[in-house]
Amino acid sequence: MIPRELIRKKRDGEPLSADEHRSFVAGVTDGSIPDYQAAAMLMAIYFRGMTDHELSAWADAMLHSGDVLDLSSVHVPKVDKHSTGGVGDKISLPLAPAVACCGVAVPMVSGRGLGHTGGTLDKLESIPGFRVDLPVERFREIVSTVGACLIGQTERIAPADRKLYALRDVTATVESIPLIASSIMSKKLAEGIDALVLDCKVGTGAFMKTVDAARDLARTMQAIGAAAGKKVTAVLSNMDQPIGRAVGNALEVEESIEVLRGGGPADTRELTVALGAEMLLAGGVVTALDEGAAAVRRVLDSGHALQKFREIVAAQGGDPRAVDEPKRFLPQAGACLEVRAQRAGWVGSIFSEAVGMAALVLGGGRRRKEDMIDPSVGITVLAHIGDRVEKGMPLALLHHRGDDSADDAARRILTAYRIVDEPLPAVPQLLLEVWR
Amino acid sequence: MIPRELIRKKRDGEPLSADEHRSFVAGVTDGSIPDYQAAAMLMAIYFRGMTDHELSAWADAMLHSGDVLDLSSVHVPKVDKHSTGGVGDKISLPLAPAVACCGVAVPMVSGRGLGHTGGTLDKLESIPGFRVDLPVERFREIVSTVGACLIGQTERIAPADRKLYALRDVTATVESIPLIASSIMSKKLAEGIDALVLDCKVGTGAFMKTVDAARDLARTMQAIGAAAGKKVTAVLSNMDQPIGRAVGNALEVEESIEVLRGGGPADTRELTVALGAEMLLAGGVVTALDEGAAAVRRVLDSGHALQKFREIVAAQGGDPRAVDEPKRFLPQAGACLEVRAQRAGWVGSIFSEAVGMAALVLGGGRRRKEDMIDPSVGITVLAHIGDRVEKGMPLALLHHRGDDSADDAARRILTAYRIVDEPLPAVPQLLLEVWR
Repeated sequence: MIPRELIRKKRDGEPLSADEHRSFVAGVTDGSIPDYQAAAMLMAIYFRGMTDHELSAWADAMLHSGDVLDLSSVHVPKVDKHSTGGVGDKISLPLAPAVACCGVAVPMVSGRGLGHTGGTLDKLESIPGFRVDLPVERFREIVSTVGACLIGQTERIAPADRKLYALRDVTATVESIPLIASSIMSKKLAEGIDALVLDCKVGTGAFMKTVDAARDLARTMQAIGAAAGKKVTAVLSNMDQPIGRAVGNALEVEESIEVLRGGGPADTRELTVALGAEMLLAGGVVTALDEGAAAVRRVLDSGHALQKFREIVAAQGGDPRAVDEPKRFLPQAGACLEVRAQRAGWVGSIFSEAVGMAALVLGGGRRRKEDMIDPSVGITVLAHIGDRVEKGMPLALLHHRGDDSADDAARRILTAYRIVDEPLPAVPQLLLEVWR
Repeated sequence: MIPRELIRKKRDGEPLSADEHRSFVAGVTDGSIPDYQAAAMLMAIYFRGMTDHELSAWADAMLHSGDVLDLSSVHVPKVDKHSTGGVGDKISLPLAPAVACCGVAVPMVSGRGLGHTGGTLDKLESIPGFRVDLPVERFREIVSTVGACLIGQTERIAPADRKLYALRDVTATVESIPLIASSIMSKKLAEGIDALVLDCKVGTGAFMKTVDAARDLARTMQAIGAAAGKKVTAVLSNMDQPIGRAVGNALEVEESIEVLRGGGPADTRELTVALGAEMLLAGGVVTALDEGAAAVRRVLDSGHALQKFREIVAAQGGDPRAVDEPKRFLPQAGACLEVRAQRAGWVGSIFSEAVGMAALVLGGGRRRKEDMIDPSVGITVLAHIGDRVEKGMPLALLHHRGDDSADDAARRILTAYRIVDEPLPAVPQLLLEVWR
């Protein structure tokens, strides 16, 4: 295998064989293919794409560049959920315990926030003591005994993807559907799951700005899943405004707990129920979606899901008192600032990426991987699309550290809101499409 | 300047500003931009191309990444010739002394052979003692006193191009017209020339297989030249069969000496005269092409050009006796093998790349940059396109080392020749187009 020849083939639009993909990914993993050749290949893939055959070979090679978890000792269906990332997307937190209560185990390897999107690991780490860097043995044990565990990618999960992901970030090759899909799937397949529910975000706060792009990603991930013998259900959901009210790490944990108490914002509960129902259906523990939705609602309303979350927190080293008294045991920002509407009207749209960036400038997100985050800061979104606002009414509440980041964040929030003169004919639908 | 952002712009087809190109090339030169980002940029340029503005900025940045020779002490016009590479293309050897005899100085920075094409430096080095690694001061002195000097690229000429060229070779980004053109022009403009004549080879022995591709390259190089205030004359010439009879380093020096004696194969002389006439015209020492051609013919026939070649050889440390008695003082291969026609007919075509590869397998070329070459080996091409051949008649003569490389080379020669049943209506024209 001559790496240059493989790059040339891809450059010229000739599909590579499974063996060629395997040897290229193996070369990346063991370092025999230098970064500059990997970078050229990534850019060629960006322009040429991959056939379904190539995709599954590439993803499979990345998957097998490291360990594949053996969860055969867990005797219930194992289903994970993956979101492509949004603003205020805390759904994994109420979802994993709720689904675990319904007889489906959730082995979840999550990520951190980058840019305007948050990350499940960062949110969980705002719970004092919570550890996301557990050894694989302990992960398996918690999945087996508690029913759900949420950790970060280890050194041994898809190391080829770790290398390529870092390289894509600095070579402007992130925005490639085959590369995004194979990166996600290689990690998810390494978890030892039976099925995956993909929450494909579409809109101003998502990486995919159009339904077409989201459909393409969904279809691509399903193709990789199919080749690996794993069912992938793709839910396309609206990301034109932040999910719920809380944007920021500790704030989102608090809102998740509200949902786990049977309350919380309607959209946050709705998405939890919808994705949970899909996971139960994919896991085969229900035969109809309605039945799954009813089961999820039941464990949210009964307090069972909250109790499960408490168990997960305790198992992962966190302080379970944070679940019961979040205002007391979660980090709280020192200062507050209201962002007020500058005119009356109706909220026509919210450029959600700017809301995510506002949370970032407050200290709650990362520009670069090595940045530290402050779990206490964030935004409470008070006005949503379609809401009537009066001049001077608060649109959002900034939880900040008393520094001048609040002014910057406030400006971003104001520019994110478009206030219109007429009421909207309809508010955006939360769930757009489901591809099973 | 964030390198990733520049790569993204290029990837998305947005032209980069001159400043952006400059800072990218500067980063490549000083190593602050790592190879993997340069590789991604090269692949993005491969797919997106460059506007004329971008090209001149990129080439200018590469040019100024190193030293630009100051030849203002040379008080005659300075014109160089560059060939895009072919099989048996030894034209620089008779051309440089001939033009120098006519009042135009030739400061020539040449290259080495790679793959099926030969390189001027390798040919010259078959003359015992000949040095192509002269210091810049000596180069300037020889150009000034003798009128022509032929050296290799130094560390200080266009170092950005050296780095990028090496990277292109291993990342499958060689075959990009903007990258080829800017690489050549950055080196040629560093020579301190007033004008350049480009011999753009087209055909089975050339990198450009079609007239359209050659025109595109010619146009691109002219655009870069124009932006730098240098006239570039582009000659498109046929490379469907080896030039002259000799393919191989010492053999080509010997054939060059024949041309310098007023003899040699007709096509080799014709190309020398045509390119020489263009150089004299571009240098402004003649006002019409005919006049230039007559001047070149005159110095070839009078022995003046031969004497000039002797002076160049002596000035560059070579043994001038090789010019007078090449069979005695140039390296000679130990063994000879005739490749005979397997059927009667007419030579319909010659796949010249295979002839170049045959010379390579004999030991006369390089697969990789670090390969050693044997100056003595090579091929004498006996049958040309349109020639009548009888079964058993020699098509070519292999000069080899007595090892089994001769059989491999003979097979390649046989497959390169296509013998047809009918005489050809016309033989290929040597000079195709000229763009001044």
